[in-house]
Amino acid sequence: MNIAATRPTLQVTTGPLPASRKIHIDGDRHGDVRVPMREVALHPTSGEPPVVLYDSSGPYTDPSAAIDIKAGLPRLRERWIAARGDVETYVGRHVLPEDNGFASGERLVPEFPVRNTPSRASNGKAVTQLAYARAGIVTPEMEFVAIRENLGRKAAKEALIRDGESFGAHIPNHVTPEFVRQEIAAGRAIIPANINHPESEPMIIGRNFLVKINANIGNSAVTSSMEEEVEKMVWAIRWGADTVMDLSTGRNIHNIREWIVRNSPVPIGTVPLYQALEKVGGIAEDLTWELYRDTLIEQAEQGVDYFTIHAGVRLHYIPLTVNRVTGIVSRGGSIMAKWCLHHHKESFLYEHFEEICDICRAYDVSFSLGDGLRPGSIADANDAAQFAELETLGELTQIAWAKDCQVMIEGPGHVPMHKIKENMDKQLKTCGEAPFYTLGPLTTDIAPGYDHITSGIGAAMIGWFGTAMLCYVTPKEHLGLPDRNDVKVGVITYKIAAHAADLAKGHPAAQVRDDALSRARFEFRWEDQFNLSLDPDTARSMHDETLPKEAHKVAHFCSMCGPKFCSMRISHDLRAEAQKEGLEAMAAKYRQGGDLYMPVANTAESQPGE
Amino acid sequence: MNIAATRPTLQVTTGPLPASRKIHIDGDRHGDVRVPMREVALHPTSGEPPVVLYDSSGPYTDPSAAIDIKAGLPRLRERWIAARGDVETYVGRHVLPEDNGFASGERLVPEFPVRNTPSRASNGKAVTQLAYARAGIVTPEMEFVAIRENLGRKAAKEALIRDGESFGAHIPNHVTPEFVRQEIAAGRAIIPANINHPESEPMIIGRNFLVKINANIGNSAVTSSMEEEVEKMVWAIRWGADTVMDLSTGRNIHNIREWIVRNSPVPIGTVPLYQALEKVGGIAEDLTWELYRDTLIEQAEQGVDYFTIHAGVRLHYIPLTVNRVTGIVSRGGSIMAKWCLHHHKESFLYEHFEEICDICRAYDVSFSLGDGLRPGSIADANDAAQFAELETLGELTQIAWAKDCQVMIEGPGHVPMHKIKENMDKQLKTCGEAPFYTLGPLTTDIAPGYDHITSGIGAAMIGWFGTAMLCYVTPKEHLGLPDRNDVKVGVITYKIAAHAADLAKGHPAAQVRDDALSRARFEFRWEDQFNLSLDPDTARSMHDETLPKEAHKVAHFCSMCGPKFCSMRISHDLRAEAQKEGLEAMAAKYRQGGDLYMPVANTAESQPGE
Repeated sequence: MNIAATRPTLQVTTGPLPASRKIHIDGDRHGDVRVPMREVALHPTSGEPPVVLYDSSGPYTDPSAAIDIKAGLPRLRERWIAARGDVETYVGRHVLPEDNGFASGERLVPEFPVRNTPSRASNGKAVTQLAYARAGIVTPEMEFVAIRENLGRKAAKEALIRDGESFGAHIPNHVTPEFVRQEIAAGRAIIPANINHPESEPMIIGRNFLVKINANIGNSAVTSSMEEEVEKMVWAIRWGADTVMDLSTGRNIHNIREWIVRNSPVPIGTVPLYQALEKVGGIAEDLTWELYRDTLIEQAEQGVDYFTIHAGVRLHYIPLTVNRVTGIVSRGGSIMAKWCLHHHKESFLYEHFEEICDICRAYDVSFSLGDGLRPGSIADANDAAQFAELETLGELTQIAWAKDCQVMIEGPGHVPMHKIKENMDKQLKTCGEAPFYTLGPLTTDIAPGYDHITSGIGAAMIGWFGTAMLCYVTPKEHLGLPDRNDVKVGVITYKIAAHAADLAKGHPAAQVRDDALSRARFEFRWEDQFNLSLDPDTARSMHDETLPKEAHKVAHFCSMCGPKFCSMRISHDLRAEAQKEGLEAMAAKYRQGGDLYMPVANTAESQPGE
Repeated sequence: MNIAATRPTLQVTTGPLPASRKIHIDGDRHGDVRVPMREVALHPTSGEPPVVLYDSSGPYTDPSAAIDIKAGLPRLRERWIAARGDVETYVGRHVLPEDNGFASGERLVPEFPVRNTPSRASNGKAVTQLAYARAGIVTPEMEFVAIRENLGRKAAKEALIRDGESFGAHIPNHVTPEFVRQEIAAGRAIIPANINHPESEPMIIGRNFLVKINANIGNSAVTSSMEEEVEKMVWAIRWGADTVMDLSTGRNIHNIREWIVRNSPVPIGTVPLYQALEKVGGIAEDLTWELYRDTLIEQAEQGVDYFTIHAGVRLHYIPLTVNRVTGIVSRGGSIMAKWCLHHHKESFLYEHFEEICDICRAYDVSFSLGDGLRPGSIADANDAAQFAELETLGELTQIAWAKDCQVMIEGPGHVPMHKIKENMDKQLKTCGEAPFYTLGPLTTDIAPGYDHITSGIGAAMIGWFGTAMLCYVTPKEHLGLPDRNDVKVGVITYKIAAHAADLAKGHPAAQVRDDALSRARFEFRWEDQFNLSLDPDTARSMHDETLPKEAHKVAHFCSMCGPKFCSMRISHDLRAEAQKEGLEAMAAKYRQGGDLYMPVANTAESQPGE
């Protein structure tokens, strides 16, 4: 099928970020491991080498890559998976009308043009990164993430000066493939990497690695389209999303997801319950284990890398939520509670959890054990319902690990600052140090429209305390479906939170970017300052709003303070004086007293803008 | 002079926020103490009383107030000040051409139409709130702030259930005027209230009170005008700024400031050094004590409520900054460093500090002891220069207190999360618990364009730890002069930080607003949710972007999840079931097992938007 015949060619955002180029660092152990990084060139006057940054954006920012979203991305892991000799291809499940919500004709989003044959483990083997790690195997995926985490640094010969409070995290000076293997084997980290998503560039989620962020995309019954969703994914990873969750509901879920997965270089997560609910017309009571199980297989075959499973919402926890201010605010949690309540039965997710594990181990779908009872208001934070569920998630973690499945645990919601650390501490203890993956938390309820900020505060803190991945919140939270700009603002806010956490944890390379940008700022290398920032376009346009002329890009001031009041400019005069004199001599003479310095020439009149 | 003859009538933003009305709570001790509050009405279906909020917006949001910025605000404290019998009016300093940067003709901003005679202490008396507090006097200002801090609550007869971690702050269940007096007498709180700014509505800054925020406004040499500045002040307080600093530079400083002070219901702070520098044509070396002293008097006569004085930048600290990544980033700090370096003399602010105190005590200008050596990058945080200056600020605090002057201490800048608390702890110890007033701190350097967020994270945390007032940072920080929208975003972000801090400290009334909004959210009272939010306009418009119809304002879902996936809607079904059954019975029967519930009717089809 030629999509172009029925719809215009789909365009997504491509091209490098300013002053950036894609570089690749080759693996040592595995010949075809090539890890992409972003290199930001600095102005020649800086005398500094380019700054190498972690790059989640995939081939879309590589001008040498041919992007055709009708073909999908190169299947870079295909050979690695095949080389392990433990998977088989098979005739997959047939796509059913209900998979797309019975959409038809004009309303049906076209199928992805290329149909791949799915793979699964042969002979009941576990094909998970956890199984390999436990068997002592360092996979190409593990080497890939090790190189990625080092941000282009070589192993330092001498011990680095480390600065930070890690609350028990142990981030090494240099990440080796063997360290990655150990962390995965211990359950402290996961590499979400479904064997049916070979297009993905491996990434790792764990407390002893860089803090990651997730962006949610997805249409809903009310609004959005498939074209928008693919572009939202590309857009989200352009600004730094490490994984993307497709939370689509409504019609066309199957087909939209296929388009997303085939074009995604980052792991894709889903909440399979959403699609299952669509299949039963939105009536929670009509959900069945068989239908849910079939949905898991459908999505595993497509290549979904992690599943949010709300198996911790148990029947007897539901009364704990009834007197809450905001009840149950997780969509999956509320659906399962409704099912349990209606049937007065234990959750089928809980009861069939081992069978779910058997599916996940056959494709290496990681678990994101859902926090269906997370608090939706400050009043409900850290309550009995929330922590009861966490205990169950700890129990399920052990079951999943026994099945060689990779696991992370979902958490927070709305939590005031003084209750954040308790969440982290309890999670580490209860869930055996499995990676924590939290929504926010939002530190107050009173700012709808600004919940990227209320939650960015909590996210930075919980990331510092040990959360491995932060699920973003956009400005539209509680109000509506985020658009393109909301997605960007959400991603940038969470990149800030994750990076602030890395700094505070004492990640050995995190401060490199801050230092390079601050030097650029101090030396009035405006373009370098913009290019090193999380959002060069916004930084540049804000600067240019008040000082648009090219001459001002080299000016030693900005419109905030103007030339006479620029502290950095004055600091330069001080530094110049000190250098003339020699710092030691300057300090010594200060102690002695006496007039040392000649009047500095007043250069204010020669500045532009005066 | 009739301003209208030369310029169009100046308009500022007036009118109440949505669903809000101005109420006043009368004092018990002082007959003419009337404390303004904002009361937000809720929908009748809520069955809840209106929510009373702290209101810094002054008469501008009171439809019954006649606003004429050419006349200025009512001088509500004038009688209180006169009644104390310790001040005299006198012929003030004449306005000099250099006070307005030698602006003339068209370029001269017109004088404020009404000229008030300045007052000062008679016979060398201290007319500060600290002096009164020490003398055991509860002033009307103290009663005013006591009522204000209680947010309309009456003293609870029973002990409240308190929740929070206050790190040694002692916030009472109910603030009494006597408590305010004690806190001021101890130096732990200040009421910035120049006797020449009787238009101001008293507010208190201290660790045992609600966390406050400051917004900076001000033109610069490059851009901005006087009309914009008055409106910026009105705009900033509309969204919640508790004080405003006028950081104007360039021409017309004197006249613009007069317009601002006469129309400001919140305390106005300045950095007198900026104007002094303008008077010497921007040449730091030409500053003299005499000229600076004259500027202090000029501004004290106008009614400036607090002065930032960078008296802690001492000569021998300057070498400590030379190897910093970003040198000195405080404007005032860099100016003083340049002066000290050029003359190789100790700072005239340090040397004349007692004389400065004598001026401040005669008008009750509070000190905001400036952190001229605050770090401008993550690399420079908590370094020797920063903490050396803090020691000097502690020394100066003692001198000011000995003169009966009110003092707060400025702090942070760029500080990673793990180094924030050290700042607070050192400040409390070094400065005898004088209130801390911090810029941010920014928790990373890498996000110009989003520094309201990088700093909102740090501000929330340091507010929690004990900082009494947070100085906002706008998205334009490091890039340019903030415009109207930047000011609003900065204020809202800092209201979030301050409120998150109040919640985490366990302020007894802080959670009232969160709870009311969360109940509204849970009950789909959309209008109540908007009206209770920090920015009702933005919340409403974001909602309406995707669901604009009036019918959707009562819909039990939003476009984020759509009707079938709305967890809150499902939660309602659960609650309805539980209420039918009785919660206790429900829980009991859950423990017993058995089928309890009838199928709930599927109402999905009847919802709009399906």
